[in-house]
Amino acid sequence: MKALVFDGELRLTDIPIPERNGEALIRVTHAGICNTDIELVKGYMGFNGVLGHEFVGRVEAAENAALIGKRVVGEINAGCGKCEKCGAKDPRHCEIRTVLGIAGRQGAFAEYLTLPESNLLIVPDTVSDEAAVLIEPLAAACRITEQLDVNGLATLIIGDGKLAQLIARVLPLSGARCDLLGKHAWKRDRVPLPCKTMALDDYEPSRSYDLAVEASGSPEGFATARRSVRPQGTIVLKSTYASKLHLNAAPIVVDEVTVLGSRCGRFEQALSLVEDRKLDPTDLITHRFALEQGVEAFVASRGSDAMKVILEIA
Amino acid sequence: MKALVFDGELRLTDIPIPERNGEALIRVTHAGICNTDIELVKGYMGFNGVLGHEFVGRVEAAENAALIGKRVVGEINAGCGKCEKCGAKDPRHCEIRTVLGIAGRQGAFAEYLTLPESNLLIVPDTVSDEAAVLIEPLAAACRITEQLDVNGLATLIIGDGKLAQLIARVLPLSGARCDLLGKHAWKRDRVPLPCKTMALDDYEPSRSYDLAVEASGSPEGFATARRSVRPQGTIVLKSTYASKLHLNAAPIVVDEVTVLGSRCGRFEQALSLVEDRKLDPTDLITHRFALEQGVEAFVASRGSDAMKVILEIA
Repeated sequence: MKALVFDGELRLTDIPIPERNGEALIRVTHAGICNTDIELVKGYMGFNGVLGHEFVGRVEAAENAALIGKRVVGEINAGCGKCEKCGAKDPRHCEIRTVLGIAGRQGAFAEYLTLPESNLLIVPDTVSDEAAVLIEPLAAACRITEQLDVNGLATLIIGDGKLAQLIARVLPLSGARCDLLGKHAWKRDRVPLPCKTMALDDYEPSRSYDLAVEASGSPEGFATARRSVRPQGTIVLKSTYASKLHLNAAPIVVDEVTVLGSRCGRFEQALSLVEDRKLDPTDLITHRFALEQGVEAFVASRGSDAMKVILEIA
Repeated sequence: MKALVFDGELRLTDIPIPERNGEALIRVTHAGICNTDIELVKGYMGFNGVLGHEFVGRVEAAENAALIGKRVVGEINAGCGKCEKCGAKDPRHCEIRTVLGIAGRQGAFAEYLTLPESNLLIVPDTVSDEAAVLIEPLAAACRITEQLDVNGLATLIIGDGKLAQLIARVLPLSGARCDLLGKHAWKRDRVPLPCKTMALDDYEPSRSYDLAVEASGSPEGFATARRSVRPQGTIVLKSTYASKLHLNAAPIVVDEVTVLGSRCGRFEQALSLVEDRKLDPTDLITHRFALEQGVEAFVASRGSDAMKVILEIA
């Protein structure tokens, strides 16, 4: 099968269809490029192999016959099945988990992938492929509402990229009063009400926000967050940084700020939002490529005119 | 009056007794040197003036006649009295507060100081002067239990200095299961049961703690904390660092760790612990100096044989 592999360089290659080993075999139809993929290509996590963790596809083989032929999305963390976290049906923090296209598990930028059947969710017919491929990053945005009660919080979202955009759509649904701070006018223009937008160049922090969500992917975003939250406020870190963040800890202590890391969310919640038409994430898609154009797709995903770049695989 | 002043260098000098301006005038009898004082002398906060914020003294003049002659300790944050925080009787985060000997207010390393009467607590006769002078740092240790429910948490306290020692005495009283990690054998030997101790040199982090409290004052302490807490664990930062902390944010996000700054506590809680004989902090006092020997006292406080250094002022 064709696959987009990173092994020091990113290239399209032919590799065998993966062995099932008791998992479901899925024919990938669409996959999305995430900033984490771009970081992986810079060496983050030291991952080598097939990239990609945002996908929708059709089950070709599985133990559970009811899954076969179904259109599915899949949670990306595959746990050991035995630890306390896995016992609580939350493999997101299993210490020996593998993560689709990120750690110890071949990813979705290929014609086929495998995942444990318990990771799969069947996609309702009313949800399009292009919406389904965005369920994974949408779940990551929803994760904040699983960690914090955001109702009524004056919230600053830092960044105007894909993840920031999804956060700007999700948090108001839970009652947060959101402003989004972004560099790019055309990206800010995509932010729907009730979230307001502000240009980064004009912004003067005033320690007025209860909550700041750093989703810009730049270390400066954290400094902006720190200068924007009130004493005893909260900063949520959504971005993983390949570079080190230089942090002056004194103001964190003096202002008793809480800094909270936030990663993967639950697919059920994200899928419900789309199914119930609470939001439509597909307007974030700016580019579509065939798998064979995967290297070009990565170049495009770094362009100033890109938000979500989709690979149309089958 | 004599006062220990920092204005680029630390020196003993003569300055006028402070004007009361509606506050209480207090004759300082004992004061304690804190690591924050040592940081201030390195330029932290850009403070110039009389240092010192840990004290016990006797009220010489006040609006409230019932205070006159009483032995008191005093909360160090003096608020504006008008903002939301001050309205909730919590000037610790008033945006225009002054802080005794730290920000905008002359401190306690002098024969006299003034503070708002509402900041003062009368010290019961059963509490010694040497215990009373430790109420301020003890309250800072108690602050953690005001922010978090530590009951049952597997807790690592990083550091074996004054503040770490007080935390090691306070947290077990609220049900935390504590280990303390320290560099110095003689300091570890001062840690009372039920807190266990470990030598820093022998320590291998294993991501097993629910909570790590960074109280070592060194940036490496944060890295140790990060490697010691479990996924979704909590790191409390008690130390302000004059230098910048270099933090790799990726593991904070991936492990969804909470980092929580923690500063000043409530004096009532700390005073009750001492009055009720739940703990006795005075075994942390290693050196005593007269105010006239203040510069020597600072040198001693940085020595490897020092924990709490007390100035006996009157």
